[in-house]
Amino acid sequence: MADYRKMWEELGMDLESHDTLCAVLPVAFGDTYLSQENRPENMAFYDFVVSEIHGVRPSELIEHQKKGGKVLGTFCVYVPDEVAVAAGAVVTGLCGGSQFWVPGGEKVLPKNTCSLIKASVGARLDRTCPFFRIADMYIGETTCDGKKKAWEILAEDVPVHVMDLPQMKRPQDYTKWADEIRIFIGVVEKLTGGKVTAESLGAAIRLINNKRRALARVYECRKSEVIPISGKDGLLMTQIAFFDDPARCAEMANKLADELEKRIKDGVSVFPKGTKRILLTGTPLAIPNWKLHHLIETSGAAVVCEEMCTGTRYFEHLVDESQTTLDGQVDALAARYMKNNCACFTPNTGRIDDILRLAREYKADGVINTNLKFCGLYDTESRSVMRALKDAGIPALNIETDYTDTDAEQLRTRIQAFLELLG
Amino acid sequence: MADYRKMWEELGMDLESHDTLCAVLPVAFGDTYLSQENRPENMAFYDFVVSEIHGVRPSELIEHQKKGGKVLGTFCVYVPDEVAVAAGAVVTGLCGGSQFWVPGGEKVLPKNTCSLIKASVGARLDRTCPFFRIADMYIGETTCDGKKKAWEILAEDVPVHVMDLPQMKRPQDYTKWADEIRIFIGVVEKLTGGKVTAESLGAAIRLINNKRRALARVYECRKSEVIPISGKDGLLMTQIAFFDDPARCAEMANKLADELEKRIKDGVSVFPKGTKRILLTGTPLAIPNWKLHHLIETSGAAVVCEEMCTGTRYFEHLVDESQTTLDGQVDALAARYMKNNCACFTPNTGRIDDILRLAREYKADGVINTNLKFCGLYDTESRSVMRALKDAGIPALNIETDYTDTDAEQLRTRIQAFLELLG
Repeated sequence: MADYRKMWEELGMDLESHDTLCAVLPVAFGDTYLSQENRPENMAFYDFVVSEIHGVRPSELIEHQKKGGKVLGTFCVYVPDEVAVAAGAVVTGLCGGSQFWVPGGEKVLPKNTCSLIKASVGARLDRTCPFFRIADMYIGETTCDGKKKAWEILAEDVPVHVMDLPQMKRPQDYTKWADEIRIFIGVVEKLTGGKVTAESLGAAIRLINNKRRALARVYECRKSEVIPISGKDGLLMTQIAFFDDPARCAEMANKLADELEKRIKDGVSVFPKGTKRILLTGTPLAIPNWKLHHLIETSGAAVVCEEMCTGTRYFEHLVDESQTTLDGQVDALAARYMKNNCACFTPNTGRIDDILRLAREYKADGVINTNLKFCGLYDTESRSVMRALKDAGIPALNIETDYTDTDAEQLRTRIQAFLELLG
Repeated sequence: MADYRKMWEELGMDLESHDTLCAVLPVAFGDTYLSQENRPENMAFYDFVVSEIHGVRPSELIEHQKKGGKVLGTFCVYVPDEVAVAAGAVVTGLCGGSQFWVPGGEKVLPKNTCSLIKASVGARLDRTCPFFRIADMYIGETTCDGKKKAWEILAEDVPVHVMDLPQMKRPQDYTKWADEIRIFIGVVEKLTGGKVTAESLGAAIRLINNKRRALARVYECRKSEVIPISGKDGLLMTQIAFFDDPARCAEMANKLADELEKRIKDGVSVFPKGTKRILLTGTPLAIPNWKLHHLIETSGAAVVCEEMCTGTRYFEHLVDESQTTLDGQVDALAARYMKNNCACFTPNTGRIDDILRLAREYKADGVINTNLKFCGLYDTESRSVMRALKDAGIPALNIETDYTDTDAEQLRTRIQAFLELLG
């Protein structure tokens, strides 16, 4: 591993505390990932990224800044990367998936806040995440109560631009979202000094669509009866996609898809024949949150799909590439992003349709619906999700958890009992 | 007390369960209210309303319906009553302020939902509230995660129209809210068969403004060094205002204000000279939630103002009455309602300004900031509220509670310790 201490120091990070995190992560990754057998060779790239997670990509972002470029930090699949890319900025994910950051968040947020938000805020305030240090501006959105208020805290020492996501999906709400994207263009242009043109935005749309197509190819392979990749590895690819350069992300996902397609042809599966197939639905699993996948896959089942922001919501639906005017492109962006079915919308029946469709497409034997504790939106929506699955005759288990490991064995017992039910 | 059993039966209420509630409420009211000394004579009206809370007003609403009128149930101070009134509909509050309804809500909502939402949903589903039975339509809004999802549950058996409240306060958000009000006009017109005209809306604006002026007069009296009314009684007036006919509400509040103004002139206070004055800020106190006022006022202090939806947010700011076109009136409504500073907005610095201003205007010796457990918005905002009060040198106590009485004595100890600090 390269020495990034100087970079971290220059970023004003808390090195001592960060060392603790750096010491823990490789062990967790080794236990969870490297213990798997017969992994696709192309996972080596993702393993490498994890091994240098706070070094290799951050140093690229800093290089970009040294050349006068800007870096935007985002938290949500509704923020259109295309706009930032078109203005010459780089986008990086900022999600916090580790319990390590939670106590830092709890210093300023109620304990009754979901771990994702607490970890993000903690990672920033405790100065233990380079991405939070590097970003010139954070782009927030009004998806949930917790995030709406978190922006106010983060904005105390970093510029934050908030996009007001409509809370419903009527025809006029698509127009509202397009208007927000237009405002976002102005913000990014001002920050970067660049200009978003029909040409640059068209190129960015194609770039991000290509990334979506590549990720979708990998997920397409997960639909196969021959399961060529573990759920854990599929999830890792998606988690890293939030941080990586979009062109490289597409290239690496395509290479992985090539390998998986060959595996399917050759009948190479990472699970024994007859392994139960699980669709996981619910709140996002930010890196390094691998808890549920690990519990499920070490209990004898395979996660074949994630109906999550860190899953299908990230790559499903392409932006219409045929628009040639900026206005047409913005409307196309709004149309694509509004297709995402987050529980922050009321009503959100489209998500139920998604879950039933994905269960069918991925040939799921059962669905595990998961909620990150204190996410009221997904928690409340669990009721209609579970009811729809019951009505459709699809076995389903509802789980609420957080980033701690204290409930792991309890969850394992429940998951195993559920898997036994699947026969 | 008149016999309303037949009416309740015809409303399809659960009479047996409702009887339990009817048995408990008078005792609670007697203990909390009737034990007070030297109350204003004009509180007799409000006492009467409470004594027949599920009878007298519901029977008026049913009379209205028998004449072909419609009743709208609302949950939030952002929904403009003026529109409904202009179309000939009657608006009634639907908030749930009692623990009695909470278990019913918990059957379908996560326990980690605030008691206000759980009680509202429980009151509807358990059929123990006539207002929820009577309303032809509920008008929801997108103020918080819990409510956004609650509409989906309520809409399963009652028509619900949701207004998408912008989550920010930029100039374009005023336009967005005006657009929502225009949609609301269409919905109400369709429901009632009535027509909202510049004339009818103008009259409704004056009617509701007069109600606001009357409530403001009572609150104005609470600013006096001579405190002519208890906080409990002030709160009761406001709580009932959500349910009453607006003209009668204004009439009764004006009568009360007349009496209070005379009391001030005569030096008649309901508290001994030197009683510490408390401004209460935070989440709403729906009827019959009198817990904090009772604890504070039986600990030797006086609540002189509520910076709450059940308080200043309900009556502060008038709608511009000079507009003569429907478009101008709608914009004036949007402008007035957007002046309310709810924690659902990001950022919400206006609320800090409100709190500091109210503390000054009401000559508060201290501020008690209260949060209804699991309201993430107000809970998170407590941090900036408490910080601003500290910076302003105003003593402040932060309290989180729910509808149960289990924490009452613990709270009393904390409140008493706080009051001692005030000297």
